[in-house]
Amino acid sequence: MPQRPAFAKWLDDTNDVTATFLAAGRIPGLVNLGGGLPGTEIWPVEDMTKLATSAVADHADETLAYAPVAGLPKLRDLIAARYSEGDLTLTRDNVLITAGGAQALNLIGTVLLEEGSTVASQTPAYLGALDNWRPRQPVYRPMRLEANDLDPVAAMTGAQFAYTVPNFSNPTGKLVNAATRRRLVDAAHHTGTWLIEDDPYGTLYYDDAPMPRMLTLSAEEAGAPYDGPVIYLGTVSKELAPGLRIGWIIAAPEMIEVLKAAKQSADMCTSGLCQQITHDAFATGLADDMLPNILDLYRARRDALCAAMDEHLPDLFTWERPTGGMFVWATAKDPALDTNRLMEVGLEHGVCISPSSVFDPEGRDHSSIRINFTYNTEDKLVTGIERLATATRAALAEA
Amino acid sequence: MPQRPAFAKWLDDTNDVTATFLAAGRIPGLVNLGGGLPGTEIWPVEDMTKLATSAVADHADETLAYAPVAGLPKLRDLIAARYSEGDLTLTRDNVLITAGGAQALNLIGTVLLEEGSTVASQTPAYLGALDNWRPRQPVYRPMRLEANDLDPVAAMTGAQFAYTVPNFSNPTGKLVNAATRRRLVDAAHHTGTWLIEDDPYGTLYYDDAPMPRMLTLSAEEAGAPYDGPVIYLGTVSKELAPGLRIGWIIAAPEMIEVLKAAKQSADMCTSGLCQQITHDAFATGLADDMLPNILDLYRARRDALCAAMDEHLPDLFTWERPTGGMFVWATAKDPALDTNRLMEVGLEHGVCISPSSVFDPEGRDHSSIRINFTYNTEDKLVTGIERLATATRAALAEA
Repeated sequence: MPQRPAFAKWLDDTNDVTATFLAAGRIPGLVNLGGGLPGTEIWPVEDMTKLATSAVADHADETLAYAPVAGLPKLRDLIAARYSEGDLTLTRDNVLITAGGAQALNLIGTVLLEEGSTVASQTPAYLGALDNWRPRQPVYRPMRLEANDLDPVAAMTGAQFAYTVPNFSNPTGKLVNAATRRRLVDAAHHTGTWLIEDDPYGTLYYDDAPMPRMLTLSAEEAGAPYDGPVIYLGTVSKELAPGLRIGWIIAAPEMIEVLKAAKQSADMCTSGLCQQITHDAFATGLADDMLPNILDLYRARRDALCAAMDEHLPDLFTWERPTGGMFVWATAKDPALDTNRLMEVGLEHGVCISPSSVFDPEGRDHSSIRINFTYNTEDKLVTGIERLATATRAALAEA
Repeated sequence: MPQRPAFAKWLDDTNDVTATFLAAGRIPGLVNLGGGLPGTEIWPVEDMTKLATSAVADHADETLAYAPVAGLPKLRDLIAARYSEGDLTLTRDNVLITAGGAQALNLIGTVLLEEGSTVASQTPAYLGALDNWRPRQPVYRPMRLEANDLDPVAAMTGAQFAYTVPNFSNPTGKLVNAATRRRLVDAAHHTGTWLIEDDPYGTLYYDDAPMPRMLTLSAEEAGAPYDGPVIYLGTVSKELAPGLRIGWIIAAPEMIEVLKAAKQSADMCTSGLCQQITHDAFATGLADDMLPNILDLYRARRDALCAAMDEHLPDLFTWERPTGGMFVWATAKDPALDTNRLMEVGLEHGVCISPSSVFDPEGRDHSSIRINFTYNTEDKLVTGIERLATATRAALAEA
């Protein structure tokens, strides 16, 4: 057989960790703390069934035909109203419906990145974002948002956009404080650079009242409809159901127009059926009714995980107890511990974690691990941490 | 306000025709022959409602959680079985579920194109494919599949892939004959180049039995599971409902693995709900039961359109009566007629058609128009053609 054409170069940057992670799904009895999945107990199946039924029966043309590229107008209106507050006035022209948050990151890369463009990024950063932008091989300027010497103007000057997850960042679970949010927004206004506020975990506050969104902070200087530099990304994956694959981008109308061109190429439109169900889940109050149960479930799991970590890991790792989101970020006390190796040893001991290297654009950080607490029951979380302690000692013994 | 970062260069290749086309949707009383929409009468709403209901009620974990990146295993198995025939043995490893056919084209571009890569393409070619690959600015080698001097080996040598729509091509509605299919497959095997068989209209044969798929022709030389060079693209948009946004790529396992990486970045996975409904629509026989009604409806519309064209357009255009698909391609007899201008004049007369320029990678072909016959009732088709005749005479008078 003659040789086949080469695949695009970006595919050479294969990630062995991802392959190991995917293979882990097949190990029987494994406690998987490495993913980022919601608990499956949160879905009110009966209510969701009713919404699916009425979506097709009562709105066949909207659910079965092609939807408008930017999304169903009534869902765009609903999202615009849901986020409008104070000085922030949004209309449907500020809203594009996407196939989940992942597609939003993909479309932004498509309209803003050339080969070798500069991106300022909160670090460590969401793996899915880095994967999405890899085909354009961007140059990353890291921003450590909790560092004393953070200079967002320097980081953003000349960058195509800045990427942040202010609420319970993936992977670190950290919350960006109000003063830093304000500085990021001011820097975006000052430099003109787009500022991405990726917010999949914005509803998952377990202890405190939510912090102001950067989108809202930016509105003080922006017109109506909103015309500021913040690009806000939301999704139903955490508060409703990831299987719907519904997300939204809120941005200046100029940006929404450009993203529409990329969206049309990417998949023409998002499923009208899934959009109708999402609309009705918000309009009927179902999504808001679900939230207290989700928060109770995840808070109890967070507490169970942190109690088990306090018991089994204090001599091995340092970490902060997160006040929301889905993850704890733990850094090894002994710098000799290679967390890529710990992942492999963990699998031999029946527990899966995510190593820090996959959240580093350069792949160099082998110091830390990400632990998820939303998917497993409390019992399983305890078992997982016990196994992790054993695995860590084994990995250190060979280091 | 400081200047914002520039958008990616590919967005400069704006297409005024597309903007005109989108704006046309708002003209009251317009007969739109320019789109490519299915007739809305084809949907059995009651049956689809039942499938949506049971999808959530009986399969909540599959419909509401994240689906596997490559798709629900049972849907991949079903598609593999549906296309296996003769020497062609497919397994789920040959199948990736996508968000419609558009996403399939997008993912193929992501894994095979670098800046300036070479693509051999049937010409004129589907607008959505050209749009999708525009960010990589590929160099196109046109292939006129009906031409006597077609040399597919020369066209494919050194190309990353060849792009074809053998069944009732968009825009021309033409069917590629059996001998040419065989030559294309042989050229792909000989050169090693990937050969895309984009087949959204493969079920829409109104007069004759379907021709063999290039995927099947290629299997004589390929192993099991299929490992040949043909990449086959299917979709439910024409035979079930575009609002589900479900399509599939059938290819060698090696290609499916690489496409999975691109799919994961693009949107993580396709909606489990839409996949479950699609699975059940095939498994229960609903999709196959719908087909005779769809064919009867579209055949009658094709006949009504062609009769009106025979009555009103023979002195103005030449065309072939299509034996399937959704479009008639008509070429102006007078080379002075600019079909970009005809589109504008048509809108003034209450009819919208698609000009040939948008189907030409170079945008140079102003000779022809694409007319859709699946969306409008027979009465409206006749009205549309009457208006088109008037508009063409008006455009010629000013040319």
